[in-house]
Amino acid sequence: MTKGNDLDPQDWAAFRAAAHRMLEASLDQLQEVRDRPWQPVPDDLPERYLIGQGGDLVGRIERDVLPHHGGNIHPRFWGWVQGSGLASDLIAGMAGAVINANVGGRDHGAVYMERAVIDWTRGKMGMPEGASGVLTTGTSQATVIAFQAARVRALPDVRKTGQGAVQLTAYAGVGVHNATRKALELIGVGADNLRQVPLINGQMDAEALSRMIAADRASGGVPFLLVGTAGSVDLGLFDDLNALADLAADHGLWLHVDGAFGAWTRIADDPWRALSDGINRADSIALDFHKWMYVGYDCGLVLIADEAAHRAAFAARPAYLEGAESGLAGGDPWYCDYGIDLSRGNRALKVWCALEAYGEAAFAAAITGNCALARVMGEEVQRHPNMALGADVVSNICVFTARVDLLPEEQSQLNSRIARRLQETGEAVFSTTRVGAVTMLRAAITNHRTRQEDIVAAVDAVARMAALPSI
Amino acid sequence: MTKGNDLDPQDWAAFRAAAHRMLEASLDQLQEVRDRPWQPVPDDLPERYLIGQGGDLVGRIERDVLPHHGGNIHPRFWGWVQGSGLASDLIAGMAGAVINANVGGRDHGAVYMERAVIDWTRGKMGMPEGASGVLTTGTSQATVIAFQAARVRALPDVRKTGQGAVQLTAYAGVGVHNATRKALELIGVGADNLRQVPLINGQMDAEALSRMIAADRASGGVPFLLVGTAGSVDLGLFDDLNALADLAADHGLWLHVDGAFGAWTRIADDPWRALSDGINRADSIALDFHKWMYVGYDCGLVLIADEAAHRAAFAARPAYLEGAESGLAGGDPWYCDYGIDLSRGNRALKVWCALEAYGEAAFAAAITGNCALARVMGEEVQRHPNMALGADVVSNICVFTARVDLLPEEQSQLNSRIARRLQETGEAVFSTTRVGAVTMLRAAITNHRTRQEDIVAAVDAVARMAALPSI
Repeated sequence: MTKGNDLDPQDWAAFRAAAHRMLEASLDQLQEVRDRPWQPVPDDLPERYLIGQGGDLVGRIERDVLPHHGGNIHPRFWGWVQGSGLASDLIAGMAGAVINANVGGRDHGAVYMERAVIDWTRGKMGMPEGASGVLTTGTSQATVIAFQAARVRALPDVRKTGQGAVQLTAYAGVGVHNATRKALELIGVGADNLRQVPLINGQMDAEALSRMIAADRASGGVPFLLVGTAGSVDLGLFDDLNALADLAADHGLWLHVDGAFGAWTRIADDPWRALSDGINRADSIALDFHKWMYVGYDCGLVLIADEAAHRAAFAARPAYLEGAESGLAGGDPWYCDYGIDLSRGNRALKVWCALEAYGEAAFAAAITGNCALARVMGEEVQRHPNMALGADVVSNICVFTARVDLLPEEQSQLNSRIARRLQETGEAVFSTTRVGAVTMLRAAITNHRTRQEDIVAAVDAVARMAALPSI
Repeated sequence: MTKGNDLDPQDWAAFRAAAHRMLEASLDQLQEVRDRPWQPVPDDLPERYLIGQGGDLVGRIERDVLPHHGGNIHPRFWGWVQGSGLASDLIAGMAGAVINANVGGRDHGAVYMERAVIDWTRGKMGMPEGASGVLTTGTSQATVIAFQAARVRALPDVRKTGQGAVQLTAYAGVGVHNATRKALELIGVGADNLRQVPLINGQMDAEALSRMIAADRASGGVPFLLVGTAGSVDLGLFDDLNALADLAADHGLWLHVDGAFGAWTRIADDPWRALSDGINRADSIALDFHKWMYVGYDCGLVLIADEAAHRAAFAARPAYLEGAESGLAGGDPWYCDYGIDLSRGNRALKVWCALEAYGEAAFAAAITGNCALARVMGEEVQRHPNMALGADVVSNICVFTARVDLLPEEQSQLNSRIARRLQETGEAVFSTTRVGAVTMLRAAITNHRTRQEDIVAAVDAVARMAALPSI
């Protein structure tokens, strides 16, 4: 029992050498990212990952792990809404591994770093001083936290009693991200109690919303939550957040803003910055750093204007977690009192490294540039006579069909096949979404590596494939 | 717009040099961990972390970040239940940063690696083939996922309708971890509907449990969930999981096991392995890799015996996430269908690196060794005439009072002061918990770096402080 443990390196020189090999391979991957597109998963990859093989770990990672990234680090990846990662993540990854911080609470550096990151973001969003926040895995978890805070404000005893027979109702625009529905399911409000408000010019119809609220009240429902969208996932649309803030105040609703990527228009140039005007008036905001701030997965944030409401929803510390005035049990806040997780990884470090390495202005330029590139893509699409946009390009998303001259069902099949073929050839990654009856190609540009020539080449590749007799 | 981006290194040679400096500093921290105990947070640390200062990032990390770790990497840290981290986390941290995988879904390497990690763990826990799982931030999130699956099995329409007036009731032993209460609050069941079953010899009293279930049924409640504990957070106790499995079957309850750390007795030697006998019969297990598997924060897992029940609770994919037969949108499962998060970081990589670097046997030896060291601590405590154990040492946790000859309130104050002073002097980290009327010192040994001499020295330090006229 007194022998040394077998879980630290027995031969430090060998471990140091292996670590430097890993670093070189990692640096190569970053520097050569344009020449390392995604690739199909080999049939035997699952066997190569089976646990218990041992051997040269770094060699196995070089051979079997690094090449099989998901593509989102590549300049021509615009599928779904995925961030491209940063070189600073490598610095943060090393430092983070040897701190091994649990940021659930207590008094140590990582707690203060998380505060710095939250407070910086709070300022950028224009939320009041004193607003609280907690870093999360992403917008999905942030949404759950925000909705629970909203519910506790509406039903102060709900943590003790459960929701019971009260029918809480929530409101969001048609096309709201699925995270809203999933959060309402999870907390037991139920998806049937999410009202989908029709859009006018891509924004929630305020009159329809008011009518729905009145109808729910008349039938015994308790409206409690209004969800505004800052950057819709399919088309990149923004609700009029100032109008929603007025409505929420009039009707006594909690205004939550889903700003997963779109919240970051706050640091972009106009006209894109203006899209998120009014976000400062939200009761809560959910956003990600791993999309449009390009920081490595995973890292999101929930901000809540009223810290007391935030704590009322989550704070709870039993005897074995009691704080102290000093020592390692000191410190305040303990972030476990602000969300679901008691043990919490150190997400702040990679955001902090990113901001300190590059500065806010570089992020502002990249986000602004992504919107400009989406606009360029829209112009390229319109240069091709058979192509057509599915919707105006509002922010960083461009949705289009490769052959507007076909029947809707034929267009859908063609667009889906083109998306798949371009992924397989390694030329570009679009995902797809439906606009009306047609499945269209969709590019969400949250990629700091994309250049204008990538956009032009990708649209040309779509045109080339669309002209083939069969693909 | 065609210029290169400013978020990749402009000078790769300089970045490579900085990264190697960061690696050297990280390796030094690992190799010298015994000589780098936790330290008080300097008053000006918040200012040093303010965002927007720029400068030499690696230098700032060396000066302001690495020294202010939370202590849990040190051999004499046994506070709360915190893992000590592994050198392999450094390898995983580098590789993970340059893959930047989003493991929400799609078809790429990280998805297959997560499958390998989940399936290996499923096997170790003895759960049936076909059981499903998803990596989480930790046991807290895993518990939420498991409870929602249990609720959906009890009320198949709950995702649509909400829970409504049905009074679901849950059962757990006195002293169950707060994660159970918080999860029931979050999903809207309500903490009042958690029955705390008295313990006999540290295990749930089966007869009392049956009476409580019957009483709830008689008053219109719907018992749905039984939570067994494999490793209680205060004393390291284990329920009789086989007995609970029988009871759950008899009463039609979902058996969830909170195995945050204790589940890993499955790979320890007897007598500790036997503590978790029966865990294979659970409907769900929540456990952490960042505690007793020593892997870096954060990483937990929920396992669910019935994959259909797991998917029924969470699966949902709208048009913009539609899968495909091939290409990057292919692949199955999409892990977003198994939990809260849509975007998901790559937690599997650090577990995989740990297991491949050291092998299962080294973990088994470390876990067994930690239990043996807790027993040694208990023996040391009993060698000191004024000290006394608060409870038998069952697994890896030792709880004791420094001066059993004082009144309870005096003992509590003394133990709290000793914990704080030892933290401040850098000699050892105990946390505290209450046993009956007394706040006691508590060591939870989930630390592969601890040696027998650390245990002896720490108990001696407690004795020395307890003998001082005032501390």
